[in-house]
Amino acid sequence: MTPPMSLPLPPSPITPTIPLDASGVQHGHLHLPHSRDDSAYGAIMIPITVIVNGDGPTVLLTGGNHGDEYHGPLALTKLVNAIDLDEVTGRIIVVPYMNYPAFVAAARNSPIDGANLNRVFPGSPTGTVTQKIADFMTRELLPLADAVLDIHDGGKTLEFLPMAASHVLDDKDAEARNWKAALAFGAPYATKLVELDMLGMWDAVVEDSGTPFLSTEIAGGGTTRPSSVRVTVDGVRNVLQHWGALAGQPAPSSSAPLDIADHGAYLISEDDGLLDWLVELGDAVAAGQPVARIYNTVKLGAPPIEVAATIDGVLAMRHFPGVVKMGDAIAMQARLVG
Amino acid sequence: MTPPMSLPLPPSPITPTIPLDASGVQHGHLHLPHSRDDSAYGAIMIPITVIVNGDGPTVLLTGGNHGDEYHGPLALTKLVNAIDLDEVTGRIIVVPYMNYPAFVAAARNSPIDGANLNRVFPGSPTGTVTQKIADFMTRELLPLADAVLDIHDGGKTLEFLPMAASHVLDDKDAEARNWKAALAFGAPYATKLVELDMLGMWDAVVEDSGTPFLSTEIAGGGTTRPSSVRVTVDGVRNVLQHWGALAGQPAPSSSAPLDIADHGAYLISEDDGLLDWLVELGDAVAAGQPVARIYNTVKLGAPPIEVAATIDGVLAMRHFPGVVKMGDAIAMQARLVG
Amino acid sequence: MTPPMSLPLPPSPITPTIPLDASGVQHGHLHLPHSRDDSAYGAIMIPITVIVNGDGPTVLLTGGNHGDEYHGPLALTKLVNAIDLDEVTGRIIVVPYMNYPAFVAAARNSPIDGANLNRVFPGSPTGTVTQKIADFMTRELLPLADAVLDIHDGGKTLEFLPMAASHVLDDKDAEARNWKAALAFGAPYATKLVELDMLGMWDAVVEDSGTPFLSTEIAGGGTTRPSSVRVTVDGVRNVLQHWGALAGQPAPSSSAPLDIADHGAYLISEDDGLLDWLVELGDAVAAGQPVARIYNTVKLGAPPIEVAATIDGVLAMRHFPGVVKMGDAIAMQARLVG
Amino acid sequence: MTPPMSLPLPPSPITPTIPLDASGVQHGHLHLPHSRDDSAYGAIMIPITVIVNGDGPTVLLTGGNHGDEYHGPLALTKLVNAIDLDEVTGRIIVVPYMNYPAFVAAARNSPIDGANLNRVFPGSPTGTVTQKIADFMTRELLPLADAVLDIHDGGKTLEFLPMAASHVLDDKDAEARNWKAALAFGAPYATKLVELDMLGMWDAVVEDSGTPFLSTEIAGGGTTRPSSVRVTVDGVRNVLQHWGALAGQPAPSSSAPLDIADHGAYLISEDDGLLDWLVELGDAVAAGQPVARIYNTVKLGAPPIEVAATIDGVLAMRHFPGVVKMGDAIAMQARLVG
Amino acid sequence: MTPPMSLPLPPSPITPTIPLDASGVQHGHLHLPHSRDDSAYGAIMIPITVIVNGDGPTVLLTGGNHGDEYHGPLALTKLVNAIDLDEVTGRIIVVPYMNYPAFVAAARNSPIDGANLNRVFPGSPTGTVTQKIADFMTRELLPLADAVLDIHDGGKTLEFLPMAASHVLDDKDAEARNWKAALAFGAPYATKLVELDMLGMWDAVVEDSGTPFLSTEIAGGGTTRPSSVRVTVDGVRNVLQHWGALAGQPAPSSSAPLDIADHGAYLISEDDGLLDWLVELGDAVAAGQPVARIYNTVKLGAPPIEVAATIDGVLAMRHFPGVVKMGDAIAMQARLVG
Amino acid sequence: MTPPMSLPLPPSPITPTIPLDASGVQHGHLHLPHSRDDSAYGAIMIPITVIVNGDGPTVLLTGGNHGDEYHGPLALTKLVNAIDLDEVTGRIIVVPYMNYPAFVAAARNSPIDGANLNRVFPGSPTGTVTQKIADFMTRELLPLADAVLDIHDGGKTLEFLPMAASHVLDDKDAEARNWKAALAFGAPYATKLVELDMLGMWDAVVEDSGTPFLSTEIAGGGTTRPSSVRVTVDGVRNVLQHWGALAGQPAPSSSAPLDIADHGAYLISEDDGLLDWLVELGDAVAAGQPVARIYNTVKLGAPPIEVAATIDGVLAMRHFPGVVKMGDAIAMQARLVG
Repeated sequence: MTPPMSLPLPPSPITPTIPLDASGVQHGHLHLPHSRDDSAYGAIMIPITVIVNGDGPTVLLTGGNHGDEYHGPLALTKLVNAIDLDEVTGRIIVVPYMNYPAFVAAARNSPIDGANLNRVFPGSPTGTVTQKIADFMTRELLPLADAVLDIHDGGKTLEFLPMAASHVLDDKDAEARNWKAALAFGAPYATKLVELDMLGMWDAVVEDSGTPFLSTEIAGGGTTRPSSVRVTVDGVRNVLQHWGALAGQPAPSSSAPLDIADHGAYLISEDDGLLDWLVELGDAVAAGQPVARIYNTVKLGAPPIEVAATIDGVLAMRHFPGVVKMGDAIAMQARLVG
Repeated sequence: MTPPMSLPLPPSPITPTIPLDASGVQHGHLHLPHSRDDSAYGAIMIPITVIVNGDGPTVLLTGGNHGDEYHGPLALTKLVNAIDLDEVTGRIIVVPYMNYPAFVAAARNSPIDGANLNRVFPGSPTGTVTQKIADFMTRELLPLADAVLDIHDGGKTLEFLPMAASHVLDDKDAEARNWKAALAFGAPYATKLVELDMLGMWDAVVEDSGTPFLSTEIAGGGTTRPSSVRVTVDGVRNVLQHWGALAGQPAPSSSAPLDIADHGAYLISEDDGLLDWLVELGDAVAAGQPVARIYNTVKLGAPPIEVAATIDGVLAMRHFPGVVKMGDAIAMQARLVG
Repeated sequence: MTPPMSLPLPPSPITPTIPLDASGVQHGHLHLPHSRDDSAYGAIMIPITVIVNGDGPTVLLTGGNHGDEYHGPLALTKLVNAIDLDEVTGRIIVVPYMNYPAFVAAARNSPIDGANLNRVFPGSPTGTVTQKIADFMTRELLPLADAVLDIHDGGKTLEFLPMAASHVLDDKDAEARNWKAALAFGAPYATKLVELDMLGMWDAVVEDSGTPFLSTEIAGGGTTRPSSVRVTVDGVRNVLQHWGALAGQPAPSSSAPLDIADHGAYLISEDDGLLDWLVELGDAVAAGQPVARIYNTVKLGAPPIEVAATIDGVLAMRHFPGVVKMGDAIAMQARLVG
Repeated sequence: MTPPMSLPLPPSPITPTIPLDASGVQHGHLHLPHSRDDSAYGAIMIPITVIVNGDGPTVLLTGGNHGDEYHGPLALTKLVNAIDLDEVTGRIIVVPYMNYPAFVAAARNSPIDGANLNRVFPGSPTGTVTQKIADFMTRELLPLADAVLDIHDGGKTLEFLPMAASHVLDDKDAEARNWKAALAFGAPYATKLVELDMLGMWDAVVEDSGTPFLSTEIAGGGTTRPSSVRVTVDGVRNVLQHWGALAGQPAPSSSAPLDIADHGAYLISEDDGLLDWLVELGDAVAAGQPVARIYNTVKLGAPPIEVAATIDGVLAMRHFPGVVKMGDAIAMQARLVG
Repeated sequence: MTPPMSLPLPPSPITPTIPLDASGVQHGHLHLPHSRDDSAYGAIMIPITVIVNGDGPTVLLTGGNHGDEYHGPLALTKLVNAIDLDEVTGRIIVVPYMNYPAFVAAARNSPIDGANLNRVFPGSPTGTVTQKIADFMTRELLPLADAVLDIHDGGKTLEFLPMAASHVLDDKDAEARNWKAALAFGAPYATKLVELDMLGMWDAVVEDSGTPFLSTEIAGGGTTRPSSVRVTVDGVRNVLQHWGALAGQPAPSSSAPLDIADHGAYLISEDDGLLDWLVELGDAVAAGQPVARIYNTVKLGAPPIEVAATIDGVLAMRHFPGVVKMGDAIAMQARLVG
Repeated sequence: MTPPMSLPLPPSPITPTIPLDASGVQHGHLHLPHSRDDSAYGAIMIPITVIVNGDGPTVLLTGGNHGDEYHGPLALTKLVNAIDLDEVTGRIIVVPYMNYPAFVAAARNSPIDGANLNRVFPGSPTGTVTQKIADFMTRELLPLADAVLDIHDGGKTLEFLPMAASHVLDDKDAEARNWKAALAFGAPYATKLVELDMLGMWDAVVEDSGTPFLSTEIAGGGTTRPSSVRVTVDGVRNVLQHWGALAGQPAPSSSAPLDIADHGAYLISEDDGLLDWLVELGDAVAAGQPVARIYNTVKLGAPPIEVAATIDGVLAMRHFPGVVKMGDAIAMQARLVG
């Protein structure tokens, strides 16, 4: 696509404390000046690791797009601790917690400006803290990358089937290329998404730049388990091999392909209350089948409200907390393909 | 035990909006006057249901002792909605959310006075809001009860094996009686606890009164699942039958008995960081075996800190969030008995 | 007026849960996705009712532009509960609480972004929550409307004489047309306003579109009374009839016409303190006449500061709270016309 | 009554900056040390005025027991500004804002410790800020007083008929003496109250000491009007004359006597919603007559809940804000006597 | 420089309460309407004084650009209290607390919108409160000024050597002219700065307009001392004389000239901890010399981290609080010139 | 003195992670269970070091009684890092930050319960977090100690002359013994205090136990400087030698003796405003001499309020921030003795 006319933006205020192109493993920080009431010349220090060995592609690995999602931070931290430099064939840039202030606050959004990082891309060098982070990712790191993997999970309030996900794109070659990466990741599920509104997403900024892109959703609830971390760690290695930044071949994938309908995927709560699930995550559901009841928490004895599936498919995501507010999406439905 | 000399306490400021002894099913509230800045003559309205049919014991069922634990509220709400009055043989008093302000805030502790309800018993009629609730439970509802069941789960920050639990008591008859109730509940596990410090707990107030008492811990993370809710709902019915307040016999129990050591049960985090679990909840662990690693989230590449089991047993509880602070208990170990 | 060159704005993220053109009475919500820390896929649900019967004009009725003003929400809620569909001749779209988050917080401004909705029109589909609401009103509901009534009162901090109000406009036909609607409303007063700065107001956006527009100010203090609600309810019916969306003729109006001077209408407090009123709302005042004294609340015995009227007229609005801050407008003066 | 055995309490940390017994008019402060994060050796400075002329009784005049009630502060500030020393026959001690931190915050309760001053009497010299204020009033000012007048109004969230109020007491002489003072005040209404629970009230502490006591409720909503201030100012002068601290005779009283039933005086809201009043303050109501409806603010079109009077009487107090929460008292009913 | 194409901005909502051109000394306020939840028609009142005597240049004196810096507010307040009108030769406009809401909150940034005023110039008449202040300074006061002095100190979190400071500019005549003013100020130090990023600064807006400009940094820590205030007061008088707005000649200057390197001036903390200073402010330091150690505050006994000077020079600024966060600048180094 | 009758208090919930009597240097924490909303089984970990070598007295060294005072934490942290075990003759127990939650928040008082630790001694094992810390210090550490040194400075809001301080006591032997320790400390000043109210202070609890006690006040403003840290570090060594816990003799003391009058020591601000100091800390002042002026910050041009010394002496402490509130102590005066 044709980018809009470039405005002459001022340079990013963010400075890495390490070189981004030195051979070997460099651990450092992205220094983002932030004048606080308790430190006039303060800064936010976002951890970054750069791993370089010989020639090869540059892969950018990101996590912590939302601050309450821990599979990305943990898998990427384990990777930079455990990696065998001799295996690397090119460059791997790792930012495990993009929205670091949100991560420190253990919250989805930034405590500084309230922003959801994944809705403010491409960001701005003169905006709020979150907008400055988005801008640095867009204008400084993305241009270095031959491929980008962004690791999400459900955070504290959602739970997903473990999946790699790629988008339906206008550019069908790009779509096919990204779908191959999704399968290569090797999670239990691989999902093709029609996103209705990608405004402000990291995904959109990367895809619009023509760079191969993959994202994931891996369990959730703000926790991790040995099994879900294993899926993530293995997936990252598989994709690095698929993209040629790590020696070797990805393990054979047996991901079950899922398809997210463009309409009707979400079930919305019509009331506040206690969620009483009738099906488990991953269960098959049929259109019209009740999947949950919502019980009134103000007046005991009130009849519960029933929420029914709208398509034939599986329960691919569920609202994690035991209580729900009116308007919340309580579930996402998906179709098993083939 | 001999109670301390009674002080002439003023009466509780809490008033039920329903009679506590009328036949049939009564849904109402406990009206607790609370003068707020936005309503001088305001009140907190704590839901309560009373079910009475013929002669028989009075059982008090409580949940929401902590506001972020949903198995109690959901199972008890379902019970009062579904109960067949003809099955009841006596009286069932149900308070699904004892710390209702905490429940409304979706938090463990009360947003009004910061108090953990389960550390302020027996409470006070002239204290803070949470102390007034504790006092009403202690002085108004407990004396009506022939047995008490308090339903806990791990809340948002802990995850337990599903279990009924009873305490080791000085009164060995009482201990045996409560242990029978724990087995009758029929959860996958039944646990006998040596509590080192019961100061301020509902458990202690009920046990000190000589009333049969049972509590539970059922999963956690601030969510519920069909399977864990089924354990709770079935357990409540089993215990009601065991105590004679519901017609019929409890289902045969196959609970695995656990034993919580009085020392060394807890593993404490020695640092802040990302939790990398090496075992799953319920896995057997051997003394000295690493169960988790903690990764530094400030400086990438720092070696993780390893946390090892201190006894041979099983992982009975784990810290649920993906991050941990220094001093937090990351796990509770238990021994399988017999 | 010539609108500025249209930018290709993305579509509004807000979706109504009901059709806006189905015959009969539909109650629903405007679903505005809002990703919160406690619900990643959360939403704000703004109540809306659409009433359609046969052919006729579309009238848009709005309230809750400020969240602490209750005459609009109450009169409009009573209307949609009590309306006789057979009386309707066309379509009535009712949004009783436009700034619903502010209404829920019982505050003038939104607790989410701090914004005063009536200063952010025409809004933006990619802005803050309040800007998204403004944008939906401007781009989705306003184009459907043949006339708009926005009901204000003084909120918690102001008190007005009960009045309908229309603006002095460059387009004298439009001004005359709106003035007729103001008289038709039939409140005790009808006021013609010269607004010095209408930047960001719903009023300006509607008037700039060429759509007939009327607003009101009806008492205040954050309360309602039978008499003031009656004025509002009757006024809404009168205006609906005047605009042809309801069968029948408006009751004859006996509104006293007021005129708000473009300069000197406001009396500004020169200090912090306790307000001691010397006149009542609606009293005649003469230029130079003291209308209030302000007493120091830090040092007893300090002489009070006197605030005097600057024109001959009536006290049309007063600061409602018993205390005032320096710079607050303590009163608005108006002239009785004719 | 026999006071409980005195504990040897430490002295109050509060120091007046003026002598409490010097002839003439002294304006000063009560200095209450309060170590804040932003001022280690900080203090709260509560305004006080002492007026002494010759021999005669000491009357203690207090206001601001709740920080959002302005008739007391304004009437007492006007009094100390306007008083003619020659009229005084004895001593008048004036504390217009007892809970000064709450007054500064424009809130009912203290922003420092959240306390409602009128529920923490007799207070404590070692407690929270509000408890220290209560203790100083109880142990330092009350013993100086031959009579006490405490001026209340409805604050921001209640509205009362203008009344002086005295309690039904076990000591019938004291009751009769106080009732005479209530009539002497000369407000439109004089009310005799059976208070069910006086725990922690200034009223109780004064009455238990045997000191003549009178309180008032005068309009409300957090505002004042010329008429309501006039009632208060005149009432204070009348009572000072009645008690002999001011020369002259009180104006003849035409107060209508009211009686607050000990049960059923309050109507409690059964739901959250918009309040739709069917009667005005002061209107006669009959048992069973609807006095207000409550409209749902989440789902338009839901039928309103009706609240009915429970006795034959008049509407003596109403919840002021346009919205109400479940459990709030929306009205107080009273009986006209004689 | 060529300004960007002017957009037709709406007028500033700020109105001075005094004329800006009347002879004599006028004290007043800048009235900035600000609709608060507790005062719908509220305002922020920013103090301003204008002093006019005969013909001569207009000098604009500003302080309180950051709300926790007290030398500007104090020196300017003393000036407007003490000035002898006969000495003035022209006009002096004094705004001692530009970011008045931040000053009232005793914080660097505004409590209303979180903004650092000195990063939002040139501001906007339709933006947040801080942006409106910046816009008024830029579009209303700056055009009146022939020269501008903005007084800074280190605020609560920095401490500087006392200095006047001027920038290296592309326009060498302007640079020389401002440097003369810096020397004229007569503080112990005069500093020439290469600012790497002046985006949003008052300095940049004034310099870009071609108006002579001087700023200062004078001690800090959020306090003042007799000696530091004397430097400021004398400096203001000297500069007013230098610019011709005050009769007489500035005192001879003995300022030591400093030079802030464009790279490496700042020492950044690599960890959180307690700061242990090895040198005093103003001490000479040599490249490689340790200037401070940072002690771990979580684990006693951990070895401290050493921070070393990167150039030969003097310690010109230091982080003031006893604790430091990772990423904070703990010191600024400067070179003594000549 | 005779202690009050011991109540059978429950044991402290605090557990040290290190033995308190093992030879050598042990660094660890005091583990205080604290159930937070984000960690049900969380804890506060207060750093502690115990140093044991051979026989000799036990000295308890404490700092961080207020969380914004850094000389204690820094000097004690440096001590435990630098100490030569061979020099130790007995046991040194070091708690550098007693109110650790306040220290972490960089605030005087605890962010958890708002409490000033130095006003809640002897504390309670069942109270708030701060009360639990006080109780552990009182019942667990104090009984081990033969002498206690508690290091204070002025924190963020006060600045003192550097001094060791001991109290005038009823027990004149104890008073003389502590005064010797004050002189041994060797700070520039040694001060004898008559404390009017010691309720809740650590000082009082230690002195009442009959244990030798010394405290300090060393500069302030929330910062440290090489010179003030040197005074503290040297003083701690001197006192350890004086009390026999460290080999060697204290350096000869040249402390100037000061005397704090029991009345009139403090100068209280009579208004809010900017503080304009007329004297420096340590300057001699004469009764009646103005020491500071307070300038109005709301209305420019208002005459400043002058604050005058009330005794002949020196300025021993001053309010540090540039602004002051009414009622704040702006200075403490002392008399030079002999």
